[in-house]
Amino acid sequence: MNMIDLNSDLGEGFGQWKMGDDNTMLSIVTSANVACGFHAGDPAGIFQTLKSAHKNQVVIGAHVSYPDLVGFGRRNMDVSSNELIADVIYQIGALKGLAVAAGTTVSYVKPHGALYNTIAHNEYQALAVITAIREVDDNLVLVGLAGSKLLDLAQENGLRTVAEAFADRAYTPQGTLVSRREKGSVLHDANLVARRMLQLVTEGGVEAIDGSFTRIQADSICVHGDSPDAVEMARQVKLTLQQAGITVRSFI
Amino acid sequence: MNMIDLNSDLGEGFGQWKMGDDNTMLSIVTSANVACGFHAGDPAGIFQTLKSAHKNQVVIGAHVSYPDLVGFGRRNMDVSSNELIADVIYQIGALKGLAVAAGTTVSYVKPHGALYNTIAHNEYQALAVITAIREVDDNLVLVGLAGSKLLDLAQENGLRTVAEAFADRAYTPQGTLVSRREKGSVLHDANLVARRMLQLVTEGGVEAIDGSFTRIQADSICVHGDSPDAVEMARQVKLTLQQAGITVRSFI
Amino acid sequence: MNMIDLNSDLGEGFGQWKMGDDNTMLSIVTSANVACGFHAGDPAGIFQTLKSAHKNQVVIGAHVSYPDLVGFGRRNMDVSSNELIADVIYQIGALKGLAVAAGTTVSYVKPHGALYNTIAHNEYQALAVITAIREVDDNLVLVGLAGSKLLDLAQENGLRTVAEAFADRAYTPQGTLVSRREKGSVLHDANLVARRMLQLVTEGGVEAIDGSFTRIQADSICVHGDSPDAVEMARQVKLTLQQAGITVRSFI
Amino acid sequence: MNMIDLNSDLGEGFGQWKMGDDNTMLSIVTSANVACGFHAGDPAGIFQTLKSAHKNQVVIGAHVSYPDLVGFGRRNMDVSSNELIADVIYQIGALKGLAVAAGTTVSYVKPHGALYNTIAHNEYQALAVITAIREVDDNLVLVGLAGSKLLDLAQENGLRTVAEAFADRAYTPQGTLVSRREKGSVLHDANLVARRMLQLVTEGGVEAIDGSFTRIQADSICVHGDSPDAVEMARQVKLTLQQAGITVRSFI
Repeated sequence: MNMIDLNSDLGEGFGQWKMGDDNTMLSIVTSANVACGFHAGDPAGIFQTLKSAHKNQVVIGAHVSYPDLVGFGRRNMDVSSNELIADVIYQIGALKGLAVAAGTTVSYVKPHGALYNTIAHNEYQALAVITAIREVDDNLVLVGLAGSKLLDLAQENGLRTVAEAFADRAYTPQGTLVSRREKGSVLHDANLVARRMLQLVTEGGVEAIDGSFTRIQADSICVHGDSPDAVEMARQVKLTLQQAGITVRSFI
Repeated sequence: MNMIDLNSDLGEGFGQWKMGDDNTMLSIVTSANVACGFHAGDPAGIFQTLKSAHKNQVVIGAHVSYPDLVGFGRRNMDVSSNELIADVIYQIGALKGLAVAAGTTVSYVKPHGALYNTIAHNEYQALAVITAIREVDDNLVLVGLAGSKLLDLAQENGLRTVAEAFADRAYTPQGTLVSRREKGSVLHDANLVARRMLQLVTEGGVEAIDGSFTRIQADSICVHGDSPDAVEMARQVKLTLQQAGITVRSFI
Repeated sequence: MNMIDLNSDLGEGFGQWKMGDDNTMLSIVTSANVACGFHAGDPAGIFQTLKSAHKNQVVIGAHVSYPDLVGFGRRNMDVSSNELIADVIYQIGALKGLAVAAGTTVSYVKPHGALYNTIAHNEYQALAVITAIREVDDNLVLVGLAGSKLLDLAQENGLRTVAEAFADRAYTPQGTLVSRREKGSVLHDANLVARRMLQLVTEGGVEAIDGSFTRIQADSICVHGDSPDAVEMARQVKLTLQQAGITVRSFI
Repeated sequence: MNMIDLNSDLGEGFGQWKMGDDNTMLSIVTSANVACGFHAGDPAGIFQTLKSAHKNQVVIGAHVSYPDLVGFGRRNMDVSSNELIADVIYQIGALKGLAVAAGTTVSYVKPHGALYNTIAHNEYQALAVITAIREVDDNLVLVGLAGSKLLDLAQENGLRTVAEAFADRAYTPQGTLVSRREKGSVLHDANLVARRMLQLVTEGGVEAIDGSFTRIQADSICVHGDSPDAVEMARQVKLTLQQAGITVRSFI
């Protein structure tokens, strides 16, 4: 494996409220998970992000969410299967419309926040997301947590999937994320993070929190862009990978 | 002219709140203006309306609006051109996504409520709507008020347009709608309304409020479905037209 | 015990969307659980319901909810304690403002939908609701499910509580509600319901779903008003109670 | 006149989105216009701002708005009188609830954005705001644009009013604000702004854009806090006034 994708959550402002530095991040990453209006993103702001992504030749994904602006899509919601299917189709459709108008296209779907976490293990919600994608456009790739059942389920249902790792998160020996509630779960040292991501690509895994090596099969690395430090970390990860001869490019 | 379209506003519930009898109306009309979530319509409800429209072979239009659920899109809003363009594309895209998933497609755009009225005369907002349609899909037809400048402007900008008349509204001798604030502006007698619509199709105009004949060039008639009386009127209009040998079918 | 309160959920329209017949219900019930804008109720609609409640001398409660208009507050949400406390205070405050302007006052709080069900057993959310009430106005009474731990917890924390029974629901031998998913959980016969509520008041319990007698200690009966049949049932319950010499009046 | 109030718009985040530095501004200003949820401000965020205001002994006002989160309340809306009255009462009530829980109180109302501008000249909307305040609490002071008809109208209707000047805005010889569309309408030099505000307090007016002196009768100065530069300007205004012996304190 000599190539990897870098993805980041973008378009997450809302009206007058800004979040992150989309333009800078779009000069770094190769895939942009663009908010669709349910956890963040007003149409005019999303449109601008899509135009900038197109200009930077960044591949676009729909960052679909529960309908929860005030909670930024980070709170679990007991939505029904019918509601979730229609909510996901609506968001993908809206983003596709804006992408076409921006001269580009939507290539994948990456669920956001609480929905992302829930469908990693909750089968009925996972199937609702898979069904939504299949019904609206079965060429869309589903990006999900490396090692999660979601990816198997999606493949069984005919979707192409891409597994992602998180640059700034610690892993258990079993290859799952260390809970944010535990000490050491989030990494802040850009150089350490960059070295770990190089290890991920070259060795197919990273050092777990207990010092053992844990295998992680990932085709994309998620980096953050919501602070100057986060942008710097993303830049460092990319540079380190490229200096080691890894091609940083989209999975599309 | 021996054919005409009947259109109606549908999919206008929101969550637990219902409005009108979509299934019955879809057995009467030939075109459905489906809410897109900004003045009414949650994704699951819209999806159901689209499936029913598809089953009834009814042509689908995007009923785009200002973002104003609590005001049902009936209040003028000073939106900027950029905001309006993106809002309209977002809504059309969302509806297209749900339509594809329902096995059908979106064929036209009919702005709703305050937006409908404003773009009949306000050029910058009219141009924003036209631009939005052109950018997302220039095969979409724009449905607007018969006699309004909007239709000329849209044609000059390369859109196909369809003019519509309102079944239950009185007209001035100049062919414009009598304001709702004036006495006699809204007609309630189903037989009278049906006879007027027959006159519209066969003579190219209706009797104005002062008794004179006013020309109205319309390819579609808007009927309401938000009460049992409204449904009955729609049914009567269709029956009267068909009994006179007029083909009631979509303009697509 | 020779008196009982009848309460109902009111003010649950939103903008153009109506729900139930508030005016008729306000001529029947003695307490009105008025929506506060989070699951239903726009300010103008709430205001009208409050004025009508005042005219009918009906006591007013704040029907607080998770922030979920499209889901009508019926979907569980993993809100944090801080969020829930502030959300509940905000809603109570808003309703108090409108109540003062309508010449009346808010006397109690009855959580709605998923929040109602969750706090019957979830202690951290129950404590958040209790804290909110205490911080904004500790004279407010908390209305909750008869037999639930919530009521004990609230009393321990210094709130006055009122337990309620549901007129149209079947009960288990343990005095809990039979789940809506089970057959026979919802009763539709107005006469049967009225007789059961008379039994509740005179004998301190009702016949459980297995034919045994189950004790229910309740000072209020919740009746629905969202359909003509529901209104008729409410009327029948009240009439039956009054004819048996029971005083139907608020717990305030 | 040897005293003046400094007010600023605060509590204008929403969920994960932040705006301005409330804590720093609360150490500078004497009155806080706190968002009420319609243009900005979620309950938990508002609550935090109110607690901080209380701690800093800053007087609190309700910064009421049209219902337009995505437009930040900056877009005119054709709301009806009934809608506006209820919307304003709802917002004041919600803020009062949170203020009580924070151990403080709401002392005044300052409309926000498009509503602020509209009621300076639109009488039916001005009367709706005045009516709302009177109905919910006629001890609340109305803060409005110095020289506007709104203030006369409010006084005629029995409200106490406070006129405010804008620190960073240029004035016409007639004492009205120079439109933002015109060159020189917004001032960026903190020292200049501070000197002008000292002139306002000591001479009862400022130099107009044409170099003449224009009288402005104001009891409060509005300063911004949405950027580090804005915070610095607010600090400079306060310091300059205090060094000249002016008491900076609330009008309450």
